[in-house]
Amino acid sequence: LHWGRFYWFEKEQRMPEPIGFIGLGNMGRPMAANLLKAGFPLKVYNRTPDKARALVEQGARPVGSPAEVASPGGVVVTVLPDDAAVESIAGDDLCRALGAGGVHVSMSTISPAAAQRLSAHHAGFGVAYVAAPVFGRPEAAADRMLRICTSGPADAKRRVHLALEAMGQGIYDFGDAPGAAHVVKLSGNFLLTAAIEAMAEAAALAEKNDIPRASLLAFLTQTLFNCPIYNNYANRIVQADFENVGFTARLAYKDMRLAAETAAASTTPMPTLNLLRDRYLALIANGKGDLDASVLANAAASDAGLTWFDAGPH
Amino acid sequence: LHWGRFYWFEKEQRMPEPIGFIGLGNMGRPMAANLLKAGFPLKVYNRTPDKARALVEQGARPVGSPAEVASPGGVVVTVLPDDAAVESIAGDDLCRALGAGGVHVSMSTISPAAAQRLSAHHAGFGVAYVAAPVFGRPEAAADRMLRICTSGPADAKRRVHLALEAMGQGIYDFGDAPGAAHVVKLSGNFLLTAAIEAMAEAAALAEKNDIPRASLLAFLTQTLFNCPIYNNYANRIVQADFENVGFTARLAYKDMRLAAETAAASTTPMPTLNLLRDRYLALIANGKGDLDASVLANAAASDAGLTWFDAGPH
Repeated sequence: LHWGRFYWFEKEQRMPEPIGFIGLGNMGRPMAANLLKAGFPLKVYNRTPDKARALVEQGARPVGSPAEVASPGGVVVTVLPDDAAVESIAGDDLCRALGAGGVHVSMSTISPAAAQRLSAHHAGFGVAYVAAPVFGRPEAAADRMLRICTSGPADAKRRVHLALEAMGQGIYDFGDAPGAAHVVKLSGNFLLTAAIEAMAEAAALAEKNDIPRASLLAFLTQTLFNCPIYNNYANRIVQADFENVGFTARLAYKDMRLAAETAAASTTPMPTLNLLRDRYLALIANGKGDLDASVLANAAASDAGLTWFDAGPH
Repeated sequence: LHWGRFYWFEKEQRMPEPIGFIGLGNMGRPMAANLLKAGFPLKVYNRTPDKARALVEQGARPVGSPAEVASPGGVVVTVLPDDAAVESIAGDDLCRALGAGGVHVSMSTISPAAAQRLSAHHAGFGVAYVAAPVFGRPEAAADRMLRICTSGPADAKRRVHLALEAMGQGIYDFGDAPGAAHVVKLSGNFLLTAAIEAMAEAAALAEKNDIPRASLLAFLTQTLFNCPIYNNYANRIVQADFENVGFTARLAYKDMRLAAETAAASTTPMPTLNLLRDRYLALIANGKGDLDASVLANAAASDAGLTWFDAGPH
């Protein structure tokens, strides 16, 4: 396979520099903890200060507002749920505090359009926007097993490389454009949910034909589809394990919506994506938005009149 | 993962017995050649006798009609394109020639409904129907790397186990029902085409956003989706290699149609499957039915106004 513009950064040895970290949810907490472990002095901010407690015990310094995490010319990392949160937090105040030479490392899954707006906004303050969305669930974040996709200005990416390495197992670059890494992240999440949907439809067909879904999915995931995504989600489908929440159906809907908006803006018809977006919308309408995103698999089953999962009060 | 009814046969050592082999297409020829190599005396039949030539040079005995491949109480293997071909060839004449104790090993991708009809028909002659559809392209057949799914009567499966081993790298059993292995085969082909469609939609989105599809697919297939199906088809998508035909779009349409009929008969709504079936139908309508099934990927690209592939006279 020809790798096109895809390349690995050369490693460069640098000393850990102070970092401001905003967003201490399920993903942000273990990521910040890994920065601390790697020797990065951290100032942390979270809307709900309680979530900073364990990190503060590990040496992080809590501050009372987003702008206070920033040092002049320093680096700030955001791990936030959506476009609106990133755009409201990484606004004028934060950029003024960062000032010329500052870098905003944006690790949330947001739209390429928001990344373009942020990049243009930041430029007015001399702040570089580095897109660095991640693949991996909270367990992977804790184990420093995230895959990090980057795009943005080359010198800013080199500067934050050591910090990104402290949070992940691999860094994959997609060039200069502020939105590029976000397109890759949305594409990856789309492929992941498409795989869940296909497995779920096939598992429903098997069971309606008296073949246990465990038999079908064990065969497929031990042979043609022996890779992390299929193995992990086949397991969840077999166990109907949708309540061990790493990433909610509501956030998966958000990603499908952002991908569909990006597709519309770039005139790219994506029929499977549209189907998945509506599947998640139906799950939210039926009170399942706060379950794990893998609850998507229950849709094909319940359409077929199968009960894999006792939704309880949902 | 709990494996349910899924298990490996215990190996039993047996001497190769004479086998009748019907269907010497792209798949049948290398499969028959592997039986010869493993010491099975073969009688072969193909509608177009030319295709038997190389096998005859390797020691196979050509015969002039399907029934002539059969010995009383013997084993006959069919590798044919569709339900109609199998049902017309494995009819009264063949079953009368096989007679009591005979076994029909049906390795084609056919519908579970046809398998049930064949099983019932054969029972009237004392002939066992063993479903044994295969996963793998002609290259895999030549390399004895096929995955073979089986279902049917246990004693007949044990009898033909050595022959199946001579043709594949693994045998995966799904119980007694004549249709079960065919449901698994159709499900696997559905998952495979769903993976192509999802990769193609994502690749189109990437390119419409100035990211080379090679970069996106290299990243995804080296990380989350590092398995044979994704690697093989990502490569074909990047190279727009749809003319190296292992398995035609027309046959893929047939599989999606059979899966959809099985879904309808078992009241299993499968929206992704329906979409894929219509994608293939559109490809056939546009003169691309004889290209490789991976030409599916071109549909998402051309919908987005991208030209990955010069379809030439098609």
